[in-house]
Amino acid sequence: MKKGIAASKGYAIGNVFVYEEKELIITDEKVTDIAVELEKLQGAVALCKEQLEKIKQKTLENVGEHEAAVFDAHLLILEDPEFVGSVEAEIKNNSINALKAVETVSNSLVSLFEAIDDAYLRERAADIKDVSKRMLANLAGHTVGLEISEDNTIVVAHDLTPSDTAQLDKTKVKGFITNIGGRTSHSAIMARTLEIPAVVGLGDITSVVKNGDRVIVDGIEGIAIINPDEATIKAYEAKIEAFAAEKEELKKLLNVKVVDKSGKHIEVCGNIGKPKDADQVLENGGDGVGLFRTEFLYMDRDAAPTEEEQFEAYKYVLETMKDKKVVIRTLDIGGDKTLPYLPLPEEMNPFLGYRAIRLCLDQTGIFKVQLRALLRASVYGKLAVMFPMISGIEEFEQAKAVVDECKKELDTEGIAYSNEIEWGIMIEIPAAAVMADELAKYVDFFSIGTNDLIQYTLAADRMSEKVSYLYNPMHPAVLRLIKMTIEGAHKHGKWVGMCGEMAGDEAAIPTLLEYGLDEFSMSATSILNAKKILMNH
Amino acid sequence: MKKGIAASKGYAIGNVFVYEEKELIITDEKVTDIAVELEKLQGAVALCKEQLEKIKQKTLENVGEHEAAVFDAHLLILEDPEFVGSVEAEIKNNSINALKAVETVSNSLVSLFEAIDDAYLRERAADIKDVSKRMLANLAGHTVGLEISEDNTIVVAHDLTPSDTAQLDKTKVKGFITNIGGRTSHSAIMARTLEIPAVVGLGDITSVVKNGDRVIVDGIEGIAIINPDEATIKAYEAKIEAFAAEKEELKKLLNVKVVDKSGKHIEVCGNIGKPKDADQVLENGGDGVGLFRTEFLYMDRDAAPTEEEQFEAYKYVLETMKDKKVVIRTLDIGGDKTLPYLPLPEEMNPFLGYRAIRLCLDQTGIFKVQLRALLRASVYGKLAVMFPMISGIEEFEQAKAVVDECKKELDTEGIAYSNEIEWGIMIEIPAAAVMADELAKYVDFFSIGTNDLIQYTLAADRMSEKVSYLYNPMHPAVLRLIKMTIEGAHKHGKWVGMCGEMAGDEAAIPTLLEYGLDEFSMSATSILNAKKILMNH
Repeated sequence: MKKGIAASKGYAIGNVFVYEEKELIITDEKVTDIAVELEKLQGAVALCKEQLEKIKQKTLENVGEHEAAVFDAHLLILEDPEFVGSVEAEIKNNSINALKAVETVSNSLVSLFEAIDDAYLRERAADIKDVSKRMLANLAGHTVGLEISEDNTIVVAHDLTPSDTAQLDKTKVKGFITNIGGRTSHSAIMARTLEIPAVVGLGDITSVVKNGDRVIVDGIEGIAIINPDEATIKAYEAKIEAFAAEKEELKKLLNVKVVDKSGKHIEVCGNIGKPKDADQVLENGGDGVGLFRTEFLYMDRDAAPTEEEQFEAYKYVLETMKDKKVVIRTLDIGGDKTLPYLPLPEEMNPFLGYRAIRLCLDQTGIFKVQLRALLRASVYGKLAVMFPMISGIEEFEQAKAVVDECKKELDTEGIAYSNEIEWGIMIEIPAAAVMADELAKYVDFFSIGTNDLIQYTLAADRMSEKVSYLYNPMHPAVLRLIKMTIEGAHKHGKWVGMCGEMAGDEAAIPTLLEYGLDEFSMSATSILNAKKILMNH
Repeated sequence: MKKGIAASKGYAIGNVFVYEEKELIITDEKVTDIAVELEKLQGAVALCKEQLEKIKQKTLENVGEHEAAVFDAHLLILEDPEFVGSVEAEIKNNSINALKAVETVSNSLVSLFEAIDDAYLRERAADIKDVSKRMLANLAGHTVGLEISEDNTIVVAHDLTPSDTAQLDKTKVKGFITNIGGRTSHSAIMARTLEIPAVVGLGDITSVVKNGDRVIVDGIEGIAIINPDEATIKAYEAKIEAFAAEKEELKKLLNVKVVDKSGKHIEVCGNIGKPKDADQVLENGGDGVGLFRTEFLYMDRDAAPTEEEQFEAYKYVLETMKDKKVVIRTLDIGGDKTLPYLPLPEEMNPFLGYRAIRLCLDQTGIFKVQLRALLRASVYGKLAVMFPMISGIEEFEQAKAVVDECKKELDTEGIAYSNEIEWGIMIEIPAAAVMADELAKYVDFFSIGTNDLIQYTLAADRMSEKVSYLYNPMHPAVLRLIKMTIEGAHKHGKWVGMCGEMAGDEAAIPTLLEYGLDEFSMSATSILNAKKILMNH
């Protein structure tokens, strides 16, 4: 038995397939026939494109638009003259073989991009690495990626890339285990989305098992059991059955409304990043959308989305959710999220800098496009809008003034909008939580963003390895601020939601319920489980 | 009249001396006699050293050790083979003239250092620029720096460098005004230390006035009046007199103890950065040292100070202050303060990262050296020790456990320490303020660090130009947290000090007094004025 990190819930028993990349041998050998070498290169490029188009299609169907966009980025690299052109030049000018030429160009671009301290360029460097790996494998005639033909397979790998995980065939792959990764690594997130049991961070699992070994993946305890005895298999078969039964049981809660002891309806909602996700919220019995992170509409593109594009996105969600409430958060960019077409100032501490509402109030042009789209979409459902990173009443009033400008414009243009929109703020800056009883006089609702609130309250960046141990949702100061926020809102008859990770955390839910939280919003797949916990308290 | 930023209080009337650097003409001209050119270079280097030694001496006498250390860095560059050696090589190998050679080497080193995202190297780049400027001026036979021979001079400059300000002769220079700079720029800080009236950030003042113009510097309103009429001069002469009289008046408060309405003694203390500063606290009537920032003992050196060096430093302050309380803060490094000999992890948000007590609890070796020195020094006066960046009780308990280890060691070694030391914490993380009533059970005192508390509470880095407008000591959330902290402490009979800039802020003092703050600690030169305000409330 090996202990790792539980990355995706569930149990699986299956046969090991060790996913190892064949070692590439790249020499400095010069070539005599340049035309032949260029032809090889063209063949490899074409094959790469074909493979990437397929993976992209599969990802669109099985996972989602956002996840598929990474393969668009890969395809763009293959069409970029800077890349393929440079490889061709290497071959022509230096009579170098195609493998070496790809490696040379890739290395120099990657080190160039990585040297610059810019999140966008670092991502591009990762894309170039991924594409180059594929080209080299194709040039060498190696198989690229995971082709699983056997049923009941457990994939064992050092790590899985976006292309790898997108290709996992759920009918054949029952689970996976990897050497590296954490709960928030890409492979872990994908596993949860695909609902495949997974354990990551197992250290040297690829060298401990071999093809054909039997292995149990316990995605709850975070362990892998290699060649288990019959008794263990029996025990896990029972667990698999119980897990499936529990899932079935949870489905009964799909249309159940949770009420607290006083009879108040506790809303359990879903967080979404793109319009299509709203479908999943409904499928999982959500009472509404508690957070639509609109920044995803702005990411992975070359220019900001137009008013029309945004209008369509918001309309889709509102129509999908019908009479259920949809809370849309205005653009929260900056901090660790950047846009290629929106230059941000260099800051020493971007988390304490120019982001979210600060940026929107400074660049009202961008802000107004979004607000107009929201107002126009408001007639299609039950809309609530909230502003991120509010530190005091002035910012809320300023944001509302921009809303009023937009309303006047629409009035002049004769375009309709709803007068029933609720206007609220995120409580994620300590100052806002401390002043909640005052702020509640002005807003329609609060939504507590625990991820940031915890970071600021404890002055600890949870992405910093050295201090992430301080990031603790159950820290007494965090709990006290949450309580103050809820009490402050209720004093003025306003409701309070929570859309940070804490809202779906089993350990926190009973306390939050006791404090009187009105709405819990979380990833769609957690909704039913949260309903169960809420009902048992 | 021109409006700028009030940088240093007081009024001055005098004659303009426009401090402009002569334009340097550097050509690509080759030299035929390399030996002559190398000799020129040696001469310039020797002259630079001589000048720097003088400035350093002057700074030591007039300003302080810390400020003088920058010239040690400059001298080191002149002795660095990487620098002078490279210039010589340029001359020898490329027959280039000395001016051009210095410029070339300087530019390449500076751009190399600036390209790397490291605060230490950026400072070195600034040092190289400063030294190169001096070398070029000496090579060209230009005067270097400010040589003022006339009485009643007002220096007008684009900006002033450390070397410039250190050379200001207070008997001749009555004030200065500059085009650029802010309240916290180097020149502004120096002006306050030297008590010379100054207005900075005047835009184009160097092109508006000419030598011999008469000018009034109003360092309170932040204005400069050019060639004033007689009535204005009269009015300002009266102001100068009143200002001097007020200063005299303040001196009467030197030995006065401030008490509040209830008769409680309100302590007004000084913040210090190096041992010698304690003298200034006494000279300004301070009731004690409210904050000794020990990190300055660690900065501008190649290795951490030894236990013995620290012991001597602490002993000096304790003996100087006699029976007055001395609050020493343990090492607060990280964030924006780095040490060349202590590598820190690369962090995206260093203010939310590995710093202060977090680093000390992780690297107890460094911590123990300081704690042992503190314990040993404790027998020489009235010592209070506080830990920075405490977020919860666990960190205080851990720190105290390390103290206990040190005590045991000293017991074994038969070395004495006081049992009367007070142990406290900085309240600068929102979590600590929110939980003050609980924390007060465990500690002897609190000291509120407003600079950080405000930044975290409002999630705004005041060094970030784009969001510094949010940094507001009088924000209702900040005031509420301060009130909670004081009430929490008093509930358990503990005292509360404040050592951030807010404690010396005229606008804040009455509110803080009303909240019941027990101790105000500030820069020594603000103590008397604070006493006056406190007594009038």
